[in-house]
Amino acid sequence: MAATSQILELSARDIARKVGNGDLSAVDVTTAFFDHIEATDGPIMAWQHLARDNALVHARGIDKAATRGTLAGVPVGVKDVIDTADMPTGYGSRVYDGFRPAWDAPCVTIARSAGGVVLGKTVSTEFAMMNPNKTRNPHNTAHTPGGSSSGSCAAVAAGHARLAFGTQTSGSVVRPASFCGVVGFKPTFGLLNRTAVKVLCDNLDTLGIITRDVRDAAWCTAAIADNPGFVVEEAMSKPTVGVFRTSRWDQAEASSQQAVEATAELLSNAGATVKEIPVPDWFDEIFNLQDAIMGWEVTQSLAYERKHLSPQLGVATRQMMHDKSLTTIDEYMDARRRLPEIRNRFEALIEGFDALITPSAPGEAPEGMPTGDPLFNRAWTVLHGPCLNVPAIIGPKGLPVGVQVVGRRYDDRRTLAVAAAVEDHWSQKRGKA
Amino acid sequence: MAATSQILELSARDIARKVGNGDLSAVDVTTAFFDHIEATDGPIMAWQHLARDNALVHARGIDKAATRGTLAGVPVGVKDVIDTADMPTGYGSRVYDGFRPAWDAPCVTIARSAGGVVLGKTVSTEFAMMNPNKTRNPHNTAHTPGGSSSGSCAAVAAGHARLAFGTQTSGSVVRPASFCGVVGFKPTFGLLNRTAVKVLCDNLDTLGIITRDVRDAAWCTAAIADNPGFVVEEAMSKPTVGVFRTSRWDQAEASSQQAVEATAELLSNAGATVKEIPVPDWFDEIFNLQDAIMGWEVTQSLAYERKHLSPQLGVATRQMMHDKSLTTIDEYMDARRRLPEIRNRFEALIEGFDALITPSAPGEAPEGMPTGDPLFNRAWTVLHGPCLNVPAIIGPKGLPVGVQVVGRRYDDRRTLAVAAAVEDHWSQKRGKA
Repeated sequence: MAATSQILELSARDIARKVGNGDLSAVDVTTAFFDHIEATDGPIMAWQHLARDNALVHARGIDKAATRGTLAGVPVGVKDVIDTADMPTGYGSRVYDGFRPAWDAPCVTIARSAGGVVLGKTVSTEFAMMNPNKTRNPHNTAHTPGGSSSGSCAAVAAGHARLAFGTQTSGSVVRPASFCGVVGFKPTFGLLNRTAVKVLCDNLDTLGIITRDVRDAAWCTAAIADNPGFVVEEAMSKPTVGVFRTSRWDQAEASSQQAVEATAELLSNAGATVKEIPVPDWFDEIFNLQDAIMGWEVTQSLAYERKHLSPQLGVATRQMMHDKSLTTIDEYMDARRRLPEIRNRFEALIEGFDALITPSAPGEAPEGMPTGDPLFNRAWTVLHGPCLNVPAIIGPKGLPVGVQVVGRRYDDRRTLAVAAAVEDHWSQKRGKA
Repeated sequence: MAATSQILELSARDIARKVGNGDLSAVDVTTAFFDHIEATDGPIMAWQHLARDNALVHARGIDKAATRGTLAGVPVGVKDVIDTADMPTGYGSRVYDGFRPAWDAPCVTIARSAGGVVLGKTVSTEFAMMNPNKTRNPHNTAHTPGGSSSGSCAAVAAGHARLAFGTQTSGSVVRPASFCGVVGFKPTFGLLNRTAVKVLCDNLDTLGIITRDVRDAAWCTAAIADNPGFVVEEAMSKPTVGVFRTSRWDQAEASSQQAVEATAELLSNAGATVKEIPVPDWFDEIFNLQDAIMGWEVTQSLAYERKHLSPQLGVATRQMMHDKSLTTIDEYMDARRRLPEIRNRFEALIEGFDALITPSAPGEAPEGMPTGDPLFNRAWTVLHGPCLNVPAIIGPKGLPVGVQVVGRRYDDRRTLAVAAAVEDHWSQKRGKA
């Protein structure tokens, strides 16, 4: 039996390989992670529900199986806006506390079929919106982990799970990943099945993958997408990378600006081609289009909650519902008609680049519990391409600040391969420091 | 109090106007429709669940309200793949029989907020796929009503409700509407919120509106979309209409071919410009693209049912699940990449036309319970534009055969206005006969 401390160092890929070939037992892995959660989750509160007995039953099944899948034994956390039949699903809200869906979401079923062991449900903000929940940042519990995938990012950061599911409609995967110092990957819109995930906005909601490193993100995405083409072993050598400051660069703290600029320098020093891409005039308009799409669709998608449950909802939820409800049908229809062309125009702008780097968040995780501003995420979600946070520096408050790597739609593997290069450069630099 | 027989003749628009201005009570309307259902549904079996007491509570609330909404008093049927918190939702399957969701779907909440009175849940095939359920065709109960929106189309055809929700992934609204002799409207993809509808295929699933006539379809769509722009009062005078036979014309029965050709003649005689649009070589390939999108997505969306519930599912459901699961990731990715261009290419082809006419179904409703072939619907669902069935002729077996009117994406109102012209011409012809 491997020592707990050794197990807790393994990547998702290592766990899957070792459990897969019988060098490690899924039961030992599951036990080690639960013991670690129980020892450390007290002040973090990443978990809404833990299912140790049920997870051990699954783990024993994996250890006995002849073939064990590409996620064999990998400890998984499921954001509480994702349906599970064997665990309560509260959608981050007291109004649905204890609800039991009829099914597991496909992402949960697929993870389990691939040998993943679901440890429990991770805390979400209410309906994956802005009202903070109980989770704290593992790096400093006086600070937010970000949201809405608060528990999933905190759980991976605290070493409680190697894969956690998040969801992003504005910036709910990449921003908390930056705040927590983990990898948060939002694939191309629609490449991961999002059935049985609480709907906020049909045109934007995307299932995301939260892991400790980029290659784990690629590995787990391949498993959940059932597409081996996502796997990244080798980082891209000497990619062509654009530095894209967006139209809101001035609203980034120095730490976030530095994360982008230092990443550019690292890449350049390693032989990558790094060029500034000037921000075109029309870029800032994407914010209005995102507002229009999200405003109209959130208002309709939460029609039941708005009509029947409003007084019991969080203050920030009610405020956000009110703000969204001001969107007009003309704004919405105009945005729907124009977005396909804007997406194409953006991809033409970055033609010839393997990926962009841009801020993941405005800076370090704010103190207290506001979940932070999705300012540097909204455009990428509405453009539908792949984007992910790669941890980069530690800011002046001692909290992690990441850099965001962004690619073209369907270019997920290339985007991940560039991100792996960014990650490798930062690892080497930290190793030398 | 209006006589029951008079109430049962009113359109949705008439009911909404009369209840809205106090000339008719919603309680009387609700009572009249329930009495009619109880008298006639025995052999039809359109309803999975009826909620008379609850509906009367809602109706009393409407009668007491100061403002009553654009669907005031309109009797509504909700397909049983759509979530309702106050009625069981079984998704057409015994495996979920009696399940109670946490919420009403937005379409249900919006219908009720607009004054609609939900009478109950209408029968669906299992998961809106091909395994037939119990409903029979009201025109001849030895025949299928079609599927998957079997109960919704049968209920409207039998005069049990004036609005019923359907869903279409291949041809589950337009085909049963043709078989049952009602209007079945599939709007542009994404224009009606489909949250909390059982997911089959994220890229194709569309909420549909089933009514007795075209103007009711437009009226109810406007209410559910919260977009008054959909309302059609006047039929389009002298539209430019394309006759599009598709690449599968030879697979249509004489009755369906005749419905299209006779409609073209009626339009032409009334002064419309009617031109044959030759079917381009690439059109037939759309069938493969639809297979790939639906195959991959259905397989993932129903992952839980496939893994855990398969032995309890219907034979046709299991067969369809098996067939769909043969789709490869390469076929799926290829279809995703190519479809946006195919959609644009098709819309370029029909530039200058107000709408097309094409078959709604291969012919009359088949005898027995197979739900029929979506052959003449699949392309239109994947092209994402608006399409609807307009009842046209009676076939040799004495069953209705419709014609399908198809338009460009976002051109829903124009498509409905052409369909209103088609409907008016058929009404006049029947009036003269």
